[in-house]
Amino acid sequence: MPLSPAVETVSIALAERSYPILIASGLLGDAAVWDDLPAAGAALIVTNVTVAPLYAARLQAALAGRYRQVHTVVLPDGEAFKTWETLNRIFDELLGRGCDRRTVLFALGGGVVGDMTGFAAASFMRGVPFVQVPTTLLAQVDSSVGGKTAINHPLGKNMIGAFYQPLKVVCDLQTLQSLPARELSAGLAEVIKYGPIADMAFLDWIEAHLPALRACEPAALAHAVRRSCEIKASVVGQDERETGLRAILNFGHTFGHAIEAGMGYGQWLHGEAVGCGMVMATRLSQALGLVDAAFADRLVRLVAAAGLPVVGPVLPAPQGGPAADNAERYLALMRVDKKAQDGDIRFVLIDGPGRAVVRSAPDALVRQVIDACCR
Amino acid sequence: MPLSPAVETVSIALAERSYPILIASGLLGDAAVWDDLPAAGAALIVTNVTVAPLYAARLQAALAGRYRQVHTVVLPDGEAFKTWETLNRIFDELLGRGCDRRTVLFALGGGVVGDMTGFAAASFMRGVPFVQVPTTLLAQVDSSVGGKTAINHPLGKNMIGAFYQPLKVVCDLQTLQSLPARELSAGLAEVIKYGPIADMAFLDWIEAHLPALRACEPAALAHAVRRSCEIKASVVGQDERETGLRAILNFGHTFGHAIEAGMGYGQWLHGEAVGCGMVMATRLSQALGLVDAAFADRLVRLVAAAGLPVVGPVLPAPQGGPAADNAERYLALMRVDKKAQDGDIRFVLIDGPGRAVVRSAPDALVRQVIDACCR
Repeated sequence: MPLSPAVETVSIALAERSYPILIASGLLGDAAVWDDLPAAGAALIVTNVTVAPLYAARLQAALAGRYRQVHTVVLPDGEAFKTWETLNRIFDELLGRGCDRRTVLFALGGGVVGDMTGFAAASFMRGVPFVQVPTTLLAQVDSSVGGKTAINHPLGKNMIGAFYQPLKVVCDLQTLQSLPARELSAGLAEVIKYGPIADMAFLDWIEAHLPALRACEPAALAHAVRRSCEIKASVVGQDERETGLRAILNFGHTFGHAIEAGMGYGQWLHGEAVGCGMVMATRLSQALGLVDAAFADRLVRLVAAAGLPVVGPVLPAPQGGPAADNAERYLALMRVDKKAQDGDIRFVLIDGPGRAVVRSAPDALVRQVIDACCR
Repeated sequence: MPLSPAVETVSIALAERSYPILIASGLLGDAAVWDDLPAAGAALIVTNVTVAPLYAARLQAALAGRYRQVHTVVLPDGEAFKTWETLNRIFDELLGRGCDRRTVLFALGGGVVGDMTGFAAASFMRGVPFVQVPTTLLAQVDSSVGGKTAINHPLGKNMIGAFYQPLKVVCDLQTLQSLPARELSAGLAEVIKYGPIADMAFLDWIEAHLPALRACEPAALAHAVRRSCEIKASVVGQDERETGLRAILNFGHTFGHAIEAGMGYGQWLHGEAVGCGMVMATRLSQALGLVDAAFADRLVRLVAAAGLPVVGPVLPAPQGGPAADNAERYLALMRVDKKAQDGDIRFVLIDGPGRAVVRSAPDALVRQVIDACCR
């Protein structure tokens, strides 16, 4: 049975690793969506305790015609569990069930489930196929697209992982209707991100449609997901492994990762930390004279209007760690960022509206921005 | 300073992932060998407690001109330590030392060090460059070449890993002079392997030069390493990710992995298990009528003459596992082999001298062969 014409498709062009992102309501329960996946004896749905009761049975039923055995593993929910121990539960399940190299993994959930399932697929038997079925706005507009997979290390976020592309990404917009408001706001951070780095017309649209987005209006969400995926697809298609351009997608993430790690994974949602991180990166851009106060104030207002924090937290002193002030704690955490080179922090900054640049900044200026943004 | 003309080079042709294997005596202490590596602030030598006292200082000195900081992490020695816990010590060192995406890893040791360092390099910050510096015959002729990296899982060998190619492989033949006889024999298993699957003239040469090889004569070792690498390079160049042809390099490994896992990792050396596994795979080939008794007897004699076991072990019953006879224990372990499909074990068999085939075999026949080969 063919897919409904109402399904929108964005393509990620990566030669033999190219794949489609499907966007529509009701996709995950539609057997036609899964028709073209490679044949295999078994599939494994990886999900979490929050998402499983809502959608696992529906996906399982839709896959039942395609795979003789459809197993499910239910992980704990939250960034704090994006660890080797949780990842190993996926391997235990795969090996305990006698899964083989053709087994297809399905990541049913948000960014944490997607990142871990992707890394499990990249590593199990040195690589098995997988599909992203993102059920949060954040995962639909960002983390499920582009093949970045990882787990966290106590000393840094997403430090252990792989670039590994899925066979397809299936964004079922209906799943967004069950999102708590806090998760929706977190996802809006990654939507907003695409404006200042790449597309000011999209930023205008987001400003105009923010009430509709926060009210979960289907048409607004559909446009936000599609346009976000288009921009991400364009960037990833030019630089799959982040040797240059792709780093601009990390706008807000250098400060944001420091917040997440410094507060303890799971205290702040990833999107909340990115929202606040965008504020700090924008203020740093302003301090460097790259954007004016009007632009910076506009972006901060939008982040706040999305329901996201715009004041950074004062990070607690690490147990047994050296005494240091708040700015020093941020700097120490940012020095292990993956973009850093020889201890030199590389920030994604706004270099005029709609244009991002990756560069370093004087420590003293970064401290001033941190001091001004946190309390 | 240019490399000495005495250095032999075998090339692995994989488009943008192509790299050379350098083969000569005294290479690891020669700064010219490391001259063309990418610039970076830091390097990390990964080695083990056995190899570190012999060669780590020499490699460190040779790298000192190229990297501002050369760190070393010393792991425990042996297959039993090819685990996530040991791998994590590499990540701890990298993050604790403030290493970044440009940091180059050096695997100084045998197959276990090479497999773990390669997987660490594949996964740290989603991929950093690495170099193989194999110091055992087994690693020089097989495991350091071709980009297979992995760690073990309690339920199966090499189950978690990546295809990830090194920047170069540096085979310092001098390191083989410090190898214990048991390790040398283990390496000879992987040398012998190349004959029956690909090159009967090489098998003739091995038979004629076995005493010289076991006596560590430099010229004989040089030829064995070079010819082995040539055959492996040719196979890997045609099928990097083992979608077909490359599986023939696993001749002896299906039975061999069952021996390693069934006896407990580290009880049998990998090469010993492969040697005995080749005997069992050859007897299975004979039972299927693919080779005659004269060929099979010849190969078994050569394995024995290399100082390798030709009688398979009776596997101990797993703790808390089901009661089963020895053949059933082998079969259960082989069903989780990476080549298995839907529980159907795929054996690499000899399909006439110098030619391998990957196929299944009736369980009853496999049992007969196991019963005949083990005591």
